[in-house]
Amino acid sequence: MPLVRITVPKGKSHEHRKAISQGVQDALVETFNVPKDDLFQIITEGAPQAEIVHTPSYLGIAYTNDFVVIQLTVSDTRTLEQKKQLFRRIADHLSERAGLRREDVFINLVEVKKENWSFGMGEAQYA
Amino acid sequence: MPLVRITVPKGKSHEHRKAISQGVQDALVETFNVPKDDLFQIITEGAPQAEIVHTPSYLGIAYTNDFVVIQLTVSDTRTLEQKKQLFRRIADHLSERAGLRREDVFINLVEVKKENWSFGMGEAQYA
Amino acid sequence: MPLVRITVPKGKSHEHRKAISQGVQDALVETFNVPKDDLFQIITEGAPQAEIVHTPSYLGIAYTNDFVVIQLTVSDTRTLEQKKQLFRRIADHLSERAGLRREDVFINLVEVKKENWSFGMGEAQYA
Repeated sequence: MPLVRITVPKGKSHEHRKAISQGVQDALVETFNVPKDDLFQIITEGAPQAEIVHTPSYLGIAYTNDFVVIQLTVSDTRTLEQKKQLFRRIADHLSERAGLRREDVFINLVEVKKENWSFGMGEAQYA
Repeated sequence: MPLVRITVPKGKSHEHRKAISQGVQDALVETFNVPKDDLFQIITEGAPQAEIVHTPSYLGIAYTNDFVVIQLTVSDTRTLEQKKQLFRRIADHLSERAGLRREDVFINLVEVKKENWSFGMGEAQYA
Repeated sequence: MPLVRITVPKGKSHEHRKAISQGVQDALVETFNVPKDDLFQIITEGAPQAEIVHTPSYLGIAYTNDFVVIQLTVSDTRTLEQKKQLFRRIADHLSERAGLRREDVFINLVEVKKENWSFGMGEAQYA
């Protein structure tokens, strides 16, 4: 059910993108009780600075051109504790598997009602 | 007022994209009372598997490389029944006009307040 | 904290994009109390009509191929008055600095809880 939009710097390898993709999905499975086969992501590339625009630093966190943006649309059924765990786990996986600095992982959650999804067939499977 | 983001597989014809675009808009007009000339969409292409990432199947629904993602930001004024009708109608139109399998149509609604839109001129026309 | 997605017509200059980017950010600082160094944007290009699809006119406002779409995900802490000011200020800046017609500036706000952000390090800095 999550629909995840991931934006990565241009020119990274397919393996890099794959590691990020799988890391985000595993974190969702581990912390948000997302079924393993509930995987839906759109991955796009952007030129650092020109298309992926970010401050040099914010809240004492300095960013580099490896900066990635992960925006997840999810149902509004998770607790604050689960959100904190998701953020931590995504940073963990992306640093361990994709070699990203934990600083360069930006995450945002957009929450919607459970009834707002159709997984095909024109049906509202969660309603 | 809907802002619709449609992601389609790379390499499809202009006619294919056009049929999807118009099918989604017609469904909004038919089920969400959207005026005909209230049409705002961003259509992007992605490489299947690499940029449009999805499970082979979920909830018993099997997907192919024709898989499209439709994320609609709309005002939070519709009933569950209207949402169900929208999903059904989008799948209907996209299968009839764009030749898509109904399974390959993924839809998500993001709801916002009516006051959250500016249709130009720097005004909040719906506030 | 805002995550801003800006879609501009293909083929515009880097300076044009830069003026839009900075204009939106300045408007956020001026009206939404966003810190100056709280800057996160994804800018993408689209072919007018084919990828940026819009009605010729809506609510009496006529659009041209310069039409830009600005979708901002923000925390749900602003008043209606602030939203109106933001819309006005964005249109002001984009017309003055990027030469856009005020008509061609489409804006949408998606509001989320303060706890829904991670600015790096896997932490929920605003929770």
